[in-house]
Amino acid sequence: MLSSEEILKIISTEIEKLNAPKAPEGLYLPIKYTLTLSGKRIRPLLTIAAFQMFDNRIHKAIPAALALELFHNFTLLHDDVMDNSPVRRGEPTVHKKWNENTAILSGDAMLIEAYKILAKSEPKYLPKLLDIFNKTALEVCEGQQYDMEFENRNDVQISEYLEMIRLKTSVLIAACLKIGAVLGNAEEEICEKLYDFGIEMGLAFQLQDDLLDTFGTEAQFGKRIGCDILEQKKTYLLLKAYETADEMQKQKLNTLFLGGNISEFDKIQGVTTIFNELKIKEKTMELIEQKHKNALSILNTLKIDEQKKQILYDFAEMLMNRQK
Amino acid sequence: MLSSEEILKIISTEIEKLNAPKAPEGLYLPIKYTLTLSGKRIRPLLTIAAFQMFDNRIHKAIPAALALELFHNFTLLHDDVMDNSPVRRGEPTVHKKWNENTAILSGDAMLIEAYKILAKSEPKYLPKLLDIFNKTALEVCEGQQYDMEFENRNDVQISEYLEMIRLKTSVLIAACLKIGAVLGNAEEEICEKLYDFGIEMGLAFQLQDDLLDTFGTEAQFGKRIGCDILEQKKTYLLLKAYETADEMQKQKLNTLFLGGNISEFDKIQGVTTIFNELKIKEKTMELIEQKHKNALSILNTLKIDEQKKQILYDFAEMLMNRQK
Repeated sequence: MLSSEEILKIISTEIEKLNAPKAPEGLYLPIKYTLTLSGKRIRPLLTIAAFQMFDNRIHKAIPAALALELFHNFTLLHDDVMDNSPVRRGEPTVHKKWNENTAILSGDAMLIEAYKILAKSEPKYLPKLLDIFNKTALEVCEGQQYDMEFENRNDVQISEYLEMIRLKTSVLIAACLKIGAVLGNAEEEICEKLYDFGIEMGLAFQLQDDLLDTFGTEAQFGKRIGCDILEQKKTYLLLKAYETADEMQKQKLNTLFLGGNISEFDKIQGVTTIFNELKIKEKTMELIEQKHKNALSILNTLKIDEQKKQILYDFAEMLMNRQK
Repeated sequence: MLSSEEILKIISTEIEKLNAPKAPEGLYLPIKYTLTLSGKRIRPLLTIAAFQMFDNRIHKAIPAALALELFHNFTLLHDDVMDNSPVRRGEPTVHKKWNENTAILSGDAMLIEAYKILAKSEPKYLPKLLDIFNKTALEVCEGQQYDMEFENRNDVQISEYLEMIRLKTSVLIAACLKIGAVLGNAEEEICEKLYDFGIEMGLAFQLQDDLLDTFGTEAQFGKRIGCDILEQKKTYLLLKAYETADEMQKQKLNTLFLGGNISEFDKIQGVTTIFNELKIKEKTMELIEQKHKNALSILNTLKIDEQKKQILYDFAEMLMNRQK
């Protein structure tokens, strides 16, 4: 069994290989640029981690692992255009560094490249892989659509938010695990359980992200703290705050968001103060803890060697304690 | 053997079936809208026409045929964003009717839908189909990239232009024929020849398009005549004009394109007059005729029943005589 570090090293080498120069540069350079920005590579790591629970010839899982990482990076590229985000992982986004047309077209090519690499998987698994991949990819688009629609709605429910992040974030993490297991020829039931484990972990991951955006430290999180507040993003934190706030707190929140004369600093401070009054941090951590527990109990019922599962326990633990 | 009309009827019914309502509407309605705009359905027609030369169980070719039509429509959707085109087939484009983000995201979903439908093809052909489909899809992106780059270049060569339209238009038409043949279990050599036939026909098709944009009639062509001239598009017509013009004609062309005070009508009139002086219409028709001849001679060497090939001869003939 390879350790996470060993797997990540292999992924890094393989991504390097993808980045050979191709013409026209205007199309392929932005793909290389996007792939080179230092991501966490969580998705291919999970694919290979799941695969090696059943088979140690990990070269068999590499095309699918890379395809999933490419797909993830494609979604970031296009999402950044749609959200008009200027920075990603500390560097200018493709539509800022080049232009919007480049971001659209290179993103399209990146999605096709993902399929191209996926198709290098063992032919007998292709129908199943495509089935999972296509379903997941469409769900991720659906999640992004809901996310954009929520911006213009003032009646988003917490249940809707959780469904949105399930689509936008969890299903891909779940698919990575399931695809790894499918390629490892695992039983159907095991594949499904790994998928369900991924859903719970994905939700915990995204909720953690929401939490760090307000309660993290800039040095560790790597992004400016309070962005979600400034953008009035309907995260779990904000929805929970509105759900539990009394009339005065609600009015304060509204004033902070609508008031034109409030500095960014004061806005972040003001909203965070109300979050603190309402114990939003604790409530979010509670929900994260619950998702984490759900994930672990699914993992516990998985009929595989405890030792083989260790990498997934470690992964769950790591996500729970992450500060970035 | 089904006639073109019979095949088109089947395609139309199948596309209808794809258009069942799905949530979120904001994502899926623009896909339905794009598919419903009356296209010529040339690509799925060619797939099924090629298939039925080898096998008459045409349901086997339908998923691939639909996937190719979806892919084509996806490229139109995203191209319209990149080119900022307000109208497509007489109707507002998706980014005008909705907005740019919708056009990007629904386009992405449409590309994924194309793969989803392709994956319904017989599993044993999937690796081969994906191979052709992915290669073609990337080439189409490359063609669009070159097309955009040419806008900002003043040294585009005719050979470069022909390579650009090969990528942007021909390879997809060629792939439609090849995929039909592959699904019909045709010999490798036959598949390749059909591909080559498609390349020549695709070039003839695009050159015809360029010609009609200047020399067609609005009523038949369905688009305003002279758009390429107004946009100073580096079509074969313009490149050939600059190649064969004397100094005075070159200067006249430059003045027409750069002169700020010239009305659109005068610009189209002026450039067309120079095209006429230089016999650009005749020269373009000569090149189209040559591509057509190449296509027919490939078709002639194809070792299949003459009767079975008839639909492709008819198709080539139809393209040669099209006014729209």
